[in-house]
Amino acid sequence: MKLDTAGLRVLTREECLHLFTLTPVGRIVFTDRALPSVQPVNFLLNGEDIVIRTSTGSKLAAATRNAVVAFEADEIDVTTRTGWSVTAVGHARAVTDPAEIELLSALPLVRWLPGDQDHFIVVRAEQVSGRRIV
Amino acid sequence: MKLDTAGLRVLTREECLHLFTLTPVGRIVFTDRALPSVQPVNFLLNGEDIVIRTSTGSKLAAATRNAVVAFEADEIDVTTRTGWSVTAVGHARAVTDPAEIELLSALPLVRWLPGDQDHFIVVRAEQVSGRRIV
Repeated sequence: MKLDTAGLRVLTREECLHLFTLTPVGRIVFTDRALPSVQPVNFLLNGEDIVIRTSTGSKLAAATRNAVVAFEADEIDVTTRTGWSVTAVGHARAVTDPAEIELLSALPLVRWLPGDQDHFIVVRAEQVSGRRIV
Repeated sequence: MKLDTAGLRVLTREECLHLFTLTPVGRIVFTDRALPSVQPVNFLLNGEDIVIRTSTGSKLAAATRNAVVAFEADEIDVTTRTGWSVTAVGHARAVTDPAEIELLSALPLVRWLPGDQDHFIVVRAEQVSGRRIV
């Protein structure tokens, strides 16, 4: 078992990718007008891609276009001092190919916000890291 | 009631600051070696400062020194489609004044990780924004 300097268990890539399948909400981290920005989103892991559904005109859609972003998910219980956190870093891209949009539309990715969410952002999980409190 | 383009309720600064007092875990967003980075941390709102406790030699301590960072907290229930998210953006600083360290050490900020956490980072909530799903 590998521990980091803070005494947290370092997770393998496989463990991290598995944990991404256990929660429907994560946070996408990007730069918006030169400032760090973070937004919670509903997502689905599709292979090694983080798939996010948003509206075409959203700030998120504009700011993440061809940018390198981070995507984080966690489950932490401070009372029992247990939990984990996983982060993927990679290029984000807007999906524009109609065939790919049709494929992604068929995923069980719930539209949970009131407005149209007909725009897909895909983040390739190029670097993955994670920690578990032990 | 003000809604954004995604149909979410826009929260006031006062509402956002109040929500920061309702959860003990948030996520600090910073840049680490030119890449976006995000890390969940235990925190406490002290006035309009986000106070974080970490270890002196941590990556977090090094990367946030005098940087502009974002700090996010949320509570989202996808099943009921309810929840909120709040973000503060501001300068982070390492606390070095012994008198201030003594004051911050007296805060009810639980040390929940195994290692030493004798280093304080303070993020000034200069810009605050938040949304609630309605």
